[in-house]
Amino acid sequence: MLKIGVIGVGTVGTSVVNILKNSADIITARAGQEIVVVSGVVNNLNKDRGVDIKLSKDPMDIINDPEIDVVVELMGGVDEAFVVVKAALEKGKAVVTANKALLAYHRYELQELAGDIAFEYEASVAGGIPIINALRDGLSANHIESIKGIMNGTCNYMLTKMMKEGVDYQPILDEAQALGYAEADPTFDVGGFDAAHKLLILASIAYGIDAKPEDILIEGIDNITQDDIAFAKEFDYVIKLLTIAEKSGNEVELRTHATLVKNEEMIAKIDGVMNGVSVVGDMVGETLYYGPGAGGNATASAVVANIVDIARRGKGSPMLGFTKPLEKGLKLKSKDEIVSKYYLRMGVEDKPGVLSSVTKMFAEHEISIETVLQRPCDNGAATLLFATHEAVEKNIQSIIKELAAASFVHSKPSMIRIES
Amino acid sequence: MLKIGVIGVGTVGTSVVNILKNSADIITARAGQEIVVVSGVVNNLNKDRGVDIKLSKDPMDIINDPEIDVVVELMGGVDEAFVVVKAALEKGKAVVTANKALLAYHRYELQELAGDIAFEYEASVAGGIPIINALRDGLSANHIESIKGIMNGTCNYMLTKMMKEGVDYQPILDEAQALGYAEADPTFDVGGFDAAHKLLILASIAYGIDAKPEDILIEGIDNITQDDIAFAKEFDYVIKLLTIAEKSGNEVELRTHATLVKNEEMIAKIDGVMNGVSVVGDMVGETLYYGPGAGGNATASAVVANIVDIARRGKGSPMLGFTKPLEKGLKLKSKDEIVSKYYLRMGVEDKPGVLSSVTKMFAEHEISIETVLQRPCDNGAATLLFATHEAVEKNIQSIIKELAAASFVHSKPSMIRIES
Repeated sequence: MLKIGVIGVGTVGTSVVNILKNSADIITARAGQEIVVVSGVVNNLNKDRGVDIKLSKDPMDIINDPEIDVVVELMGGVDEAFVVVKAALEKGKAVVTANKALLAYHRYELQELAGDIAFEYEASVAGGIPIINALRDGLSANHIESIKGIMNGTCNYMLTKMMKEGVDYQPILDEAQALGYAEADPTFDVGGFDAAHKLLILASIAYGIDAKPEDILIEGIDNITQDDIAFAKEFDYVIKLLTIAEKSGNEVELRTHATLVKNEEMIAKIDGVMNGVSVVGDMVGETLYYGPGAGGNATASAVVANIVDIARRGKGSPMLGFTKPLEKGLKLKSKDEIVSKYYLRMGVEDKPGVLSSVTKMFAEHEISIETVLQRPCDNGAATLLFATHEAVEKNIQSIIKELAAASFVHSKPSMIRIES
Repeated sequence: MLKIGVIGVGTVGTSVVNILKNSADIITARAGQEIVVVSGVVNNLNKDRGVDIKLSKDPMDIINDPEIDVVVELMGGVDEAFVVVKAALEKGKAVVTANKALLAYHRYELQELAGDIAFEYEASVAGGIPIINALRDGLSANHIESIKGIMNGTCNYMLTKMMKEGVDYQPILDEAQALGYAEADPTFDVGGFDAAHKLLILASIAYGIDAKPEDILIEGIDNITQDDIAFAKEFDYVIKLLTIAEKSGNEVELRTHATLVKNEEMIAKIDGVMNGVSVVGDMVGETLYYGPGAGGNATASAVVANIVDIARRGKGSPMLGFTKPLEKGLKLKSKDEIVSKYYLRMGVEDKPGVLSSVTKMFAEHEISIETVLQRPCDNGAATLLFATHEAVEKNIQSIIKELAAASFVHSKPSMIRIES
């Protein structure tokens, strides 16, 4: 019998306890032994969680319990969770976690600490989709060329509604908050940080790249308007918050931002709260994984799968899927050097010479224009929309600064990258 | 160092040898040890395969070689492959196979024979998509409610072309054969048998159901015409060769046939030679896996992933993912009792009373009609198209027989099931 302690018995923790109890038939058959949750840790002992396990307030009660084989960490946060997980590994206990922030900061130290002890984290990326499983084990024969993911359900829900129903950003954010899809402070989701944490985990498995959130390009979706959506529709794009890891030469670029994606791409077809991850390997080509990225039962499905795997196999795979450096000399590409196509929107004065001045600036920054659209607004103003050919990030950032300062530009230009 | 013998050095076998050699950097890092192909078995020793390994004609040369740790079976076929794989397991060698036909007939005996020895078969279903990995390991916390797959690239290529370019069945089959997507005798693909073999493997993992190809409903795509496609387009369907495993109560139905699928379903969006499998679990909801279902490198990607897994972990998971019966009393549903919505097309005489006679027959067979379309043809004939509400398979089979025999029906009615 495998004995489990759950640190953090909230929505996901309760689902884990319930699945292991209610689906004991199939889980015992698949794991080859019974799996039982013995105890849990909560902040508030007075709240009824409807689960029939021993509860305490101190994580060390589970860590120090010699009966416990597997510690399931669902407390969230970075620093305290790291202390707890580290203590569990030091006691030789297997660990399962759903904590993406912990891994975004400490995954390499944790791989080192875990050694042969099983340390699993399927639920930390894309909820119920077994993407860690696929990338680490299923695609291990491949040099990974790129990973492109829709890994934040809140953003995808909002963008889908904005595209399909013509709703503006603020009302749809209000709705998402009312439905519980977005937090009271939505920055972590709509600012791209949640997706970036997940990207860092996948990039480690694919490339062995060690980067922290502050090292990579992270932008959100809060500047998207119906003007952008009209442009997207006209040119057969959808707008998605995309996480991108892509290798070129010996450099890997990592970035999370709103992106114009061609309609016909499989990843463009992922709508609403659903998540999806497209992975291109040098041997397999493109594979794509789709499913629910959040929710108590979907996330618990991934946590329990990790526990079953530990029951079956005892010791772990190498946590990140490799024991030696994966590809020699591979390094993180500087944010400034990222090459992309770009879309820029700006409000300008509607008077002679403006378009000429703007296009001259593009030429001076070595940015070649692919498409221009000008739309009249009220009060002698016009909206200018540009799509560029491939350009270098630092040139785009510098033209945005210059345009923002120009007298005939009414507001700082808004930019979306185009994935081609 | 892990030493490999490859039985069958054709397209996939050559790719396996080349990947293990050319990608040795990442594979050693991921596997934790070197993996080397030592020898291969081929039918014709005189053909140059461009690989630098010892070749012989007798599989037993590899089976009996004490140096070999893992036998990779890529010879195909059922009976001889079973003898070879069995002999390898008896020698205690791990086995990796891509042979779906072998597993469609012998998977339970092989699980029994393998015991603790690693026996892996990722490439046998959906080529490069790690669907065995996902279903057996990633979704192990779930009672599986349904599996719906597009698992034959030849059929999907043909149906996509027929839908998008208005081409008829025979010319597109000719083209597929010319492109090498279809065999000279295409029956195994277009008749649904290839997809059915794969379905049986997935159904074993999901339900522990033991069935052989001859026990389940298998139909192909050779009766599809542009009349059917026009109907599909009018009512927002696409036509796909779908493999379906679905649980209701204590029965599981297994079937492979041309199917009308609503446009908005993710599985409907999988076009061309690509494969996709949608799995619904009771906890996770729907997840979907998409990628190339065939091709030397894509298939080899799955074979090599299995080898890496064996290098990492030594002993196997239980081959089919369970050690005791999965769900008590679960049994295969009789083909006759399958419930579905149906679409029927028939050519009839264009004279008074025909529609009345046909609809009376539907009533007598307890089949309720949802949609009727009548289109005039030349020479006093008309095409009648019906879509039904849910009906029982045996009633449909019986009305088809009766309609075929009716004087006013010109040819045996053509039927497609509708997935709702």
